[in-house]
Amino acid sequence: MRTEKAPNPARRSERSRQAILTAALDLVIEVGYRKLTMEAIAGKAGVGKQTIYRWWPSKGAVVLDAILALSQGDTGDSTLPDTGDVEADLKLVLRASLEEMGDRRFDVLYRAVITEIQYDPALTEEMGRRLLGPMLELSKDRLRAAQRAGQIAENADLDVAVELIYGSVYYRWLLGTGPLTAEYADRVVDWALNGLRPRPAG
Amino acid sequence: MRTEKAPNPARRSERSRQAILTAALDLVIEVGYRKLTMEAIAGKAGVGKQTIYRWWPSKGAVVLDAILALSQGDTGDSTLPDTGDVEADLKLVLRASLEEMGDRRFDVLYRAVITEIQYDPALTEEMGRRLLGPMLELSKDRLRAAQRAGQIAENADLDVAVELIYGSVYYRWLLGTGPLTAEYADRVVDWALNGLRPRPAG
Repeated sequence: MRTEKAPNPARRSERSRQAILTAALDLVIEVGYRKLTMEAIAGKAGVGKQTIYRWWPSKGAVVLDAILALSQGDTGDSTLPDTGDVEADLKLVLRASLEEMGDRRFDVLYRAVITEIQYDPALTEEMGRRLLGPMLELSKDRLRAAQRAGQIAENADLDVAVELIYGSVYYRWLLGTGPLTAEYADRVVDWALNGLRPRPAG
Repeated sequence: MRTEKAPNPARRSERSRQAILTAALDLVIEVGYRKLTMEAIAGKAGVGKQTIYRWWPSKGAVVLDAILALSQGDTGDSTLPDTGDVEADLKLVLRASLEEMGDRRFDVLYRAVITEIQYDPALTEEMGRRLLGPMLELSKDRLRAAQRAGQIAENADLDVAVELIYGSVYYRWLLGTGPLTAEYADRVVDWALNGLRPRPAG
């Protein structure tokens, strides 16, 4: 009984961690990333600044975790949909990515981290390992299944394939060269897949 | 005679403009974009801060002009190479873009502007109009010539095509998901073009 009533350090830690991520998310929306400070996050989360620095080296690292918490809350998926139709599945996934980018919270956090990694190689590595790498791997897994099903050429370069697809969308999103509509996502999948399909023999 | 010896306001303006761009470029390399200030640019260029503000609203806008000056110094081209072989030409162009991104001055300036446009819609518009739009148009012109030559399908979606190609490269460059080698540029062109070629009839 006693153990249940006593403060549980692990649970308290988890509560602080959540409070910090929520505070960071709220503040980024409220004041913008550039005016975000560790002091303000600590103040809003009701923890000491040292508590934040114990877990995160920089505000960029806090924001990366806030993104991951937001994304995992939405999906938590560890595979992409596989209805047997690779074209339909990729369109579904890419449309969902665009919708996520259209969510103001996600948009602001994600742009913030991407600006941050331009100046922070350790955060670039972390973002690749925890966010982008897994995302690209999931897509490659789905393309591998399509290869086994004969919908994609056996020799297709899957590393390039996933960057053709996500690259187009991120380019438009980060550089503002055009609207990020569902229809655009479909066209990207159409033309990228077009080059990946098996060639008729002969 | 008198007019030749008198100070020429247009020439003096141009000299100040060049001095400001050179100072911005040098300082970005020296102290990094985040520590760059209008004061420091003015000091190094030997002009008053008001002179800079007369032409540019922000340090991001100065840096955009510094990039344009750097790029135009290199090429000044208004069309892409057209040897008749669209695959070879696109590979040449994309390899050249990667080399430019590998130039430390260009890399630092370009990343700086891209971080800046995440927070500055006016600069996004200007960068689209003066840098990205013309670059994409040149590539579309080259693809249109390839359509006329029967190397690319008549119904190919050229807006998507150029973003597949540049998007992949910018994705890797900005997000650090892999090395930007000439061999990677070639693979991107190979797989993007593969989907754009005319289909055999029947």
